[in-house]
Amino acid sequence: MAKKTKKIAVYPGSFDPPTDGHLNIIERGAKLFDEVVVAIAVNSSKKPLLTIQERLDTLKVLLKKHRNVRLDFFENKLLVHYAREKKATAILRGLRTVQDYEYEFQMALANKQLAPEIETVFMMTDSGLSHLSSSLVKEILSLGGSGKNLVPPLVEKIVHQKFKK
Amino acid sequence: MAKKTKKIAVYPGSFDPPTDGHLNIIERGAKLFDEVVVAIAVNSSKKPLLTIQERLDTLKVLLKKHRNVRLDFFENKLLVHYAREKKATAILRGLRTVQDYEYEFQMALANKQLAPEIETVFMMTDSGLSHLSSSLVKEILSLGGSGKNLVPPLVEKIVHQKFKK
Amino acid sequence: MAKKTKKIAVYPGSFDPPTDGHLNIIERGAKLFDEVVVAIAVNSSKKPLLTIQERLDTLKVLLKKHRNVRLDFFENKLLVHYAREKKATAILRGLRTVQDYEYEFQMALANKQLAPEIETVFMMTDSGLSHLSSSLVKEILSLGGSGKNLVPPLVEKIVHQKFKK
Amino acid sequence: MAKKTKKIAVYPGSFDPPTDGHLNIIERGAKLFDEVVVAIAVNSSKKPLLTIQERLDTLKVLLKKHRNVRLDFFENKLLVHYAREKKATAILRGLRTVQDYEYEFQMALANKQLAPEIETVFMMTDSGLSHLSSSLVKEILSLGGSGKNLVPPLVEKIVHQKFKK
Amino acid sequence: MAKKTKKIAVYPGSFDPPTDGHLNIIERGAKLFDEVVVAIAVNSSKKPLLTIQERLDTLKVLLKKHRNVRLDFFENKLLVHYAREKKATAILRGLRTVQDYEYEFQMALANKQLAPEIETVFMMTDSGLSHLSSSLVKEILSLGGSGKNLVPPLVEKIVHQKFKK
Amino acid sequence: MAKKTKKIAVYPGSFDPPTDGHLNIIERGAKLFDEVVVAIAVNSSKKPLLTIQERLDTLKVLLKKHRNVRLDFFENKLLVHYAREKKATAILRGLRTVQDYEYEFQMALANKQLAPEIETVFMMTDSGLSHLSSSLVKEILSLGGSGKNLVPPLVEKIVHQKFKK
Repeated sequence: MAKKTKKIAVYPGSFDPPTDGHLNIIERGAKLFDEVVVAIAVNSSKKPLLTIQERLDTLKVLLKKHRNVRLDFFENKLLVHYAREKKATAILRGLRTVQDYEYEFQMALANKQLAPEIETVFMMTDSGLSHLSSSLVKEILSLGGSGKNLVPPLVEKIVHQKFKK
Repeated sequence: MAKKTKKIAVYPGSFDPPTDGHLNIIERGAKLFDEVVVAIAVNSSKKPLLTIQERLDTLKVLLKKHRNVRLDFFENKLLVHYAREKKATAILRGLRTVQDYEYEFQMALANKQLAPEIETVFMMTDSGLSHLSSSLVKEILSLGGSGKNLVPPLVEKIVHQKFKK
Repeated sequence: MAKKTKKIAVYPGSFDPPTDGHLNIIERGAKLFDEVVVAIAVNSSKKPLLTIQERLDTLKVLLKKHRNVRLDFFENKLLVHYAREKKATAILRGLRTVQDYEYEFQMALANKQLAPEIETVFMMTDSGLSHLSSSLVKEILSLGGSGKNLVPPLVEKIVHQKFKK
Repeated sequence: MAKKTKKIAVYPGSFDPPTDGHLNIIERGAKLFDEVVVAIAVNSSKKPLLTIQERLDTLKVLLKKHRNVRLDFFENKLLVHYAREKKATAILRGLRTVQDYEYEFQMALANKQLAPEIETVFMMTDSGLSHLSSSLVKEILSLGGSGKNLVPPLVEKIVHQKFKK
Repeated sequence: MAKKTKKIAVYPGSFDPPTDGHLNIIERGAKLFDEVVVAIAVNSSKKPLLTIQERLDTLKVLLKKHRNVRLDFFENKLLVHYAREKKATAILRGLRTVQDYEYEFQMALANKQLAPEIETVFMMTDSGLSHLSSSLVKEILSLGGSGKNLVPPLVEKIVHQKFKK
Repeated sequence: MAKKTKKIAVYPGSFDPPTDGHLNIIERGAKLFDEVVVAIAVNSSKKPLLTIQERLDTLKVLLKKHRNVRLDFFENKLLVHYAREKKATAILRGLRTVQDYEYEFQMALANKQLAPEIETVFMMTDSGLSHLSSSLVKEILSLGGSGKNLVPPLVEKIVHQKFKK
């Protein structure tokens, strides 16, 4: 039962901004897979708060302690096609709410048909506040709320600077 | 980034009887982990349809094609304590419905507290009929319905014999 | 586009007891189909509050104003097999809650495989209190609560007599 | 119990584009009702992918095998008012997910008040991939994914041409 | 067990327009708390149907019969910060659907962290049609549907005038 | 706007055993109401783990720090009838999951009809582990799991003694 192939998981997201919830999933995913590729999905039709470069720079700092986590981004392609290029075994997703569940279920079905060799695996976010969506976190920070337990201090600082402009 | 530890997942269930849905999760889980331990959870307070021995015998036949799947059972202990004994990295669970989701979410939270080193990972069952619960499958078979797409022919035969008695 | 076949729907349930919610679905279903067969599903493993005869007698009175509604019961067979015998085009079901939805979705999938020619159609119960399940209704009546808006007066009377014994 | 009135159902949607899921509901609905009116709801505030004419042309081809299915569109009026004009007995809707369920439940309640004589009936989409929403289908096709099991080949061709422009 | 502090609840919303569902919650909340502050949340990024002034004027008329209900609005601040300024004990929210539940659950968690001294309490809307969201109500009114059981006659008149323009 | 009537809330439950989740709701409810009556609902048809006396004794110790919390039990009557006897303004309930939500929604509707003057108010349990149901807590303790963050140490001790017998 020797293990030969490296098990790679892609963890996609917009990470606009990265939250404590994202970091929690990455940390736990890094224990399950030989390599986790944190992949920023660039969506040109949405106006982001942070530029791609800002998200890459921030995540680079936040993820440097994980030896088997890599950082990347992809654009104008289906997630499963990107995952296939990366020779991923799995797509890693966090589940927070029932609404997430429904959307993720649809996506998992579609991805299974588009790339049957890639599995989607889910982990449930485990602390109360990592349940919060990026958009709710942004709203709180934009109105002067504290980012404690929501985002890392580095992210709180960058986002607050954005909103001051 | 050398990989040292074998990644073991425990896939627990009552498997009374094993369904096509169970086998689908096991097959896909076997691609993600170095080893999957299919673990029959013996619940002495419920009266099962199949004995432990019948479930072990049936699963043994059904799983023999998977080189990295092992079969076991446990009793009178918490799943996480069993998983810890097996040096498991993860507990593998199938998600079918929103009701599953709620229950599994509670269990994942509880397990995280009881054994923080073990992760719970979820896969969604992927074909329409593997959505069906063991109890619904039993009800259909008990009333003379066909087991096609619900259970392997071997299981259908055994269950029908049970109900004839 | 002449219509030749009579469109028959089976509306199954335990009707233990029949509630205002059941009657609401029957009344509305009778406008959609040429004939609605109200079919008491006899479940020998559950101890009912009302006997089959009591349920038949009560429903007979309650349904007599509907010209295209028939009353029947079935036992020890799958619903879809019963519906096929009745040459039903459809099985009619009421949806009240998300939990209903999940169960009904599983059943509809299973029934579709077992009898592909029979469709399951759903109507949502439309008044606030017809949301209540038979078991909640029974609990309320057993503790001396009023059956107003929950069950027809005839049913309230019979159920109260049962609980007095 | 002579049947006099023709039972007509309106099946509304934006059909932008029509999917395999829509066609599945139409085909099954055509067995339940004497006539099904597939009604494109024109929403002038959303920018569609396909023009009304393109949707009408495509659906015309896809539906020609059904003798009791008619094609139509409506604009600037409530669905129930449109259904009343068509002398419809029912509005036909497909249910895919719990989120659908919630929205549809609200709509069914509102429609019941606005036109008490018209019933809303639901059918659950029955194959795995017909669960996918039109917007997810559009996203997959726009990023070069295959439309297999998602849309008819005719629709895949038209949508791919749109995205090439 | 002498009571010293006045129990104040803030009931926030966009009230664009106020619906029968809102008024139902306010009326019932006024029985629970010593004072209810109905607080219009001004969201400068959304284009409202009614101006702030129109909403204040309408609500003033609709709420004048309640002696312990006050009317206010807030802008560019977090709800919990506003509630703290008002020395509120609680934030009052109506729950209609499971989707509401999920969103409200996230908000309640976030608010608890941002202002631990303020509780969020929920009441379920109790009549069938008060389930309808403001946006669905707007859509119905904009297409000429009746506002009966949806909004007070005063609101129906104002909204119809808006859509005539 | 002088306050005259004392606002009393009944917090019903089986408390078999009392969990950290129950205590969290009681503590927060005590800040909202002038008096909270913690009311053990005695259900003679279920075999409890703890006797009524044990539950009363345990809760008495756990609640003694709250000056405006009283302890009581009721049997063979509807909750709303009990609440009416206590002159309660409200019934207080904790919401943990969507499944809770559905059940509670049904109960709130029924209670509203049976005693329109009594409101049901909900608070969401706020820490991750207080999400766990009494039955899951019992299962964990019965299999030797730690009660940390699940139940007070006093409860853990009593429950462990029960299972040793």
